[in-house]
Amino acid sequence: MAIKLVPSAPSAYRFPLLIKHLLTTPRTIAPDQEITYQGRVRYTYRELDRRIGRLASGLAGLGVEAGQTVAVMDWDSHRYLECFFAIPMMGAVLQTVNVRLSPEQILYTLNHARADVLLFNKEFIPIVEQIASRLATVRTFVLMADDDLRLDLPVPLAAEYEAMLAAASPDYDFPDFDENAQATTFYTTGTTGEPKGVYFSHRQLVLHTLGCAASLGPAPRQGHIHREDVYMPLTPMFHVHAWGFPYLATMMGLKQVYPGRYQPDVICRLIGEEGVTFSHCVPTIFHMVLGHALAKTTDFSRWKVLIGGSAMPEAMAVTAAKRGIDLFTGYGMSETCPVLSVAHLSSAHMGRSSEEQAIIRAKTGLPLPLVDLRIVDHAMRDVAHDGKSTGEVVVRAPWLTQGYVGAAEASEELWAGGYLHTADIGNIDPAGYLKVTDRMKDVIKTGGEWTSSLQLEDVLAKHEAVNEVAVIGIPDDKWGERPLALVLLNPEFVGKITEHALRHFAAQEIEAQGISRYGVLLQVRFVKTLVKTSIGKMNKRLMRADPDALTL
Amino acid sequence: MAIKLVPSAPSAYRFPLLIKHLLTTPRTIAPDQEITYQGRVRYTYRELDRRIGRLASGLAGLGVEAGQTVAVMDWDSHRYLECFFAIPMMGAVLQTVNVRLSPEQILYTLNHARADVLLFNKEFIPIVEQIASRLATVRTFVLMADDDLRLDLPVPLAAEYEAMLAAASPDYDFPDFDENAQATTFYTTGTTGEPKGVYFSHRQLVLHTLGCAASLGPAPRQGHIHREDVYMPLTPMFHVHAWGFPYLATMMGLKQVYPGRYQPDVICRLIGEEGVTFSHCVPTIFHMVLGHALAKTTDFSRWKVLIGGSAMPEAMAVTAAKRGIDLFTGYGMSETCPVLSVAHLSSAHMGRSSEEQAIIRAKTGLPLPLVDLRIVDHAMRDVAHDGKSTGEVVVRAPWLTQGYVGAAEASEELWAGGYLHTADIGNIDPAGYLKVTDRMKDVIKTGGEWTSSLQLEDVLAKHEAVNEVAVIGIPDDKWGERPLALVLLNPEFVGKITEHALRHFAAQEIEAQGISRYGVLLQVRFVKTLVKTSIGKMNKRLMRADPDALTL
Repeated sequence: MAIKLVPSAPSAYRFPLLIKHLLTTPRTIAPDQEITYQGRVRYTYRELDRRIGRLASGLAGLGVEAGQTVAVMDWDSHRYLECFFAIPMMGAVLQTVNVRLSPEQILYTLNHARADVLLFNKEFIPIVEQIASRLATVRTFVLMADDDLRLDLPVPLAAEYEAMLAAASPDYDFPDFDENAQATTFYTTGTTGEPKGVYFSHRQLVLHTLGCAASLGPAPRQGHIHREDVYMPLTPMFHVHAWGFPYLATMMGLKQVYPGRYQPDVICRLIGEEGVTFSHCVPTIFHMVLGHALAKTTDFSRWKVLIGGSAMPEAMAVTAAKRGIDLFTGYGMSETCPVLSVAHLSSAHMGRSSEEQAIIRAKTGLPLPLVDLRIVDHAMRDVAHDGKSTGEVVVRAPWLTQGYVGAAEASEELWAGGYLHTADIGNIDPAGYLKVTDRMKDVIKTGGEWTSSLQLEDVLAKHEAVNEVAVIGIPDDKWGERPLALVLLNPEFVGKITEHALRHFAAQEIEAQGISRYGVLLQVRFVKTLVKTSIGKMNKRLMRADPDALTL
Repeated sequence: MAIKLVPSAPSAYRFPLLIKHLLTTPRTIAPDQEITYQGRVRYTYRELDRRIGRLASGLAGLGVEAGQTVAVMDWDSHRYLECFFAIPMMGAVLQTVNVRLSPEQILYTLNHARADVLLFNKEFIPIVEQIASRLATVRTFVLMADDDLRLDLPVPLAAEYEAMLAAASPDYDFPDFDENAQATTFYTTGTTGEPKGVYFSHRQLVLHTLGCAASLGPAPRQGHIHREDVYMPLTPMFHVHAWGFPYLATMMGLKQVYPGRYQPDVICRLIGEEGVTFSHCVPTIFHMVLGHALAKTTDFSRWKVLIGGSAMPEAMAVTAAKRGIDLFTGYGMSETCPVLSVAHLSSAHMGRSSEEQAIIRAKTGLPLPLVDLRIVDHAMRDVAHDGKSTGEVVVRAPWLTQGYVGAAEASEELWAGGYLHTADIGNIDPAGYLKVTDRMKDVIKTGGEWTSSLQLEDVLAKHEAVNEVAVIGIPDDKWGERPLALVLLNPEFVGKITEHALRHFAAQEIEAQGISRYGVLLQVRFVKTLVKTSIGKMNKRLMRADPDALTL
């Protein structure tokens, strides 16, 4: 069509959406703002800026060029934050390695991404040792250590991170380039098959950052993220760029706290000592923090926590409210950069009881600006927004991965019909809140109808005896499948409550809430553990394969 | 450089930043939200969506195609909002005509922009009558009327707006196209020369909208714009798209109130009846609203007002605070889409007196995300951020006009040295707040040093007798120039206070504040009126030319 393009610009004017531009505003509005690593390292944004320059100069000195891939293996640290900026700003690709994968899987992802350089924390020396001889493309190794240790290393070291920075110039002229340049890559692990590589461009990461700010900032009463917040990630930086929040926190000039490896005592201490007000995590991590002895004496009353990654049980929001924690849910996945929606409460919601609020807080939320989020049937027809009708969640947004690396068929499937298919089942209520009710592959089909495992889990999680629960489908001659709840009890209830009693409790709730007419078929089994994936999600595939192995 | 572009997408994936995508989220989160025109017309976002479709269908029926320019002459209305979306979404260019210009200037801008179609409110029939025979390119005329009047028209009418919509289909398939397509154009009037055309693309308007949301939302304590706000513009929609806020309000799904022509009684009524919580305007309009009799009984206590366009006197923020109004300043210009910075207060500021707060509220603020705002000397070297050193404000951002239509030399001058030159003089304090102290052309040079006319105006505006004041430079044999304050008194003080007394007051303040050692040269003259531009800014060029003509 004959649109009129804006006249070509004077050479002066060009503004590609590059990650380096996220650093522009904090230079003016927050030069003296703090960034700390565990409270042990502490510096200002001014110093961050200089260290980003030094890191780029240092890497360039090692031969790193635009287009190369630089992989990082670290826990959450200021160094990782520096890598988030310096590496893509050079035009190179940052590969964030999931350090919770098996050494064989890590090897696979580094070779598959054709990583040229590997920066690794000394904690991962044993892994590097196991895979070094089989790394096909990595030729340059840089060690990241908190202290200046002389270590016995399995690979020839090109540099030690801090020494490299100390010797390098803080002045690095980060060039302009095409905003569609690849900035990051990482591997997403489903419960089946090899990890799949996704990738994001500078443009996508900048737009995702703006989209998050434009959604979390304008929250009316609750979950309002503002310029006086103190940020600490609790989703690892290797996992979808810690959901993109280090970019957001930096752009907003927030004080940032990096906790290293997630240890509940350290986390509680940092929340108290550094005055952390905003974090994000999967339910498992939140559960772990609140379950620690130190949590009893920690003041959480200013803490806002965005929960994502897996469904949040409503009971968790109620527990959080008792401690003054503002818990709310977001929705997204590795393929979506990740944030698509956030569940904010309206002023009207805020007047209700915490039990009623929990229903909203556990919803997966209102779509971010520009996010075209639909629930559709098998023919891609929209399902009514009545809070009941369910369909698959499909989405378009400016920050979705364009496919999987070297996996054309999977990419095509992901993008069938012009929308990215999340494989999640959900409903949207008249106010626009999405509620994810199940993963397509986790749905239980009983008597020809779908039963939501997440709804049944929600019911059971309300019982005081239940620590964690996973509901799976098991084969049944009569019904096809029937739901089985694998329940991990709170220690003080072991031997004090029966499977039968819990089943009775669930049946009553199911009937009261009118959830599923097949809920009565629910069986309950106490287990000694639940199987999770590397990032703390329930691995239902493995639990389905052999539920008996888990029995208490 | 050899950056790695993200692999080419499956055909499914494309997401140009188009204005139509701003409508995506409200479709889900605010379908039943209200839009009202003067409280007389009222409909939902669902209906807005349908009317946007109808408008596009109707215009297409009149032969409007992508690439054409559709000009609009209207006061602030729901119809204008529909034009903001439908016209660019078709791939056509929306020309917002400044209806306060003289008919000759309006004729000039329509011919210069080569407008194909003109939509005009019936109030402007006299203007259309004057210029119709000399319109070089406009061939299609559409009347916008609140009531179904049979009018005697100076041009053959292609359609009447409401009749056209009623007959047209709400379903219009708005296509995808290049995000660099031109979306809007309008003419900016300096105080000299012909109006100059600026233009903005879809990409720029979408990014400006996200940038504003990412700045106004995350305000910590004050000026926090959120999803429960009720929006009413008080900067005309023809003036830099009402500063882009109708796009922001729509993206956020806010209730919107359009007041038509700005009449203080109507504005006061709408603030009360519709519960308006957020507006934006130049100081003159704010002054006019608060000066109206009805303002005395209007509850302004939930009203946030972003002031821009000209410097806000600190006294205005103090007056506003007494009425419970949250007044704060933004900064930008026609060439910058317009918003570049917004003056939010921190929690620490909020604890201070309203006089102390006013100093911050009157600053021109903290730069928006991605906005690279500098103050530089003549050699483009950065000036220190010490709150004292001044330089020219120059800027880069993703939403700046790329030049003036058909004015290569002026465009080159605007973008000299790779930054857009605002011709404003300002300082930046250590916290990052920009304070614009003068226009380069309004600076008064006394004894070889610059004196800030805005600072002197601020001093005089604090006196209770002063209604409005403009400080200009007048030739002086000894000093080169000396400052002259043209003062419009509050009616009750006319004859009760002398020029000498006011000069004495100013001199004391100037010395107490240590503003300017040439401040003592200030002369004061009472005037019967002040000369303003079409958008309510002081026209100092005209006042300098003949200050005597204004004398009381």
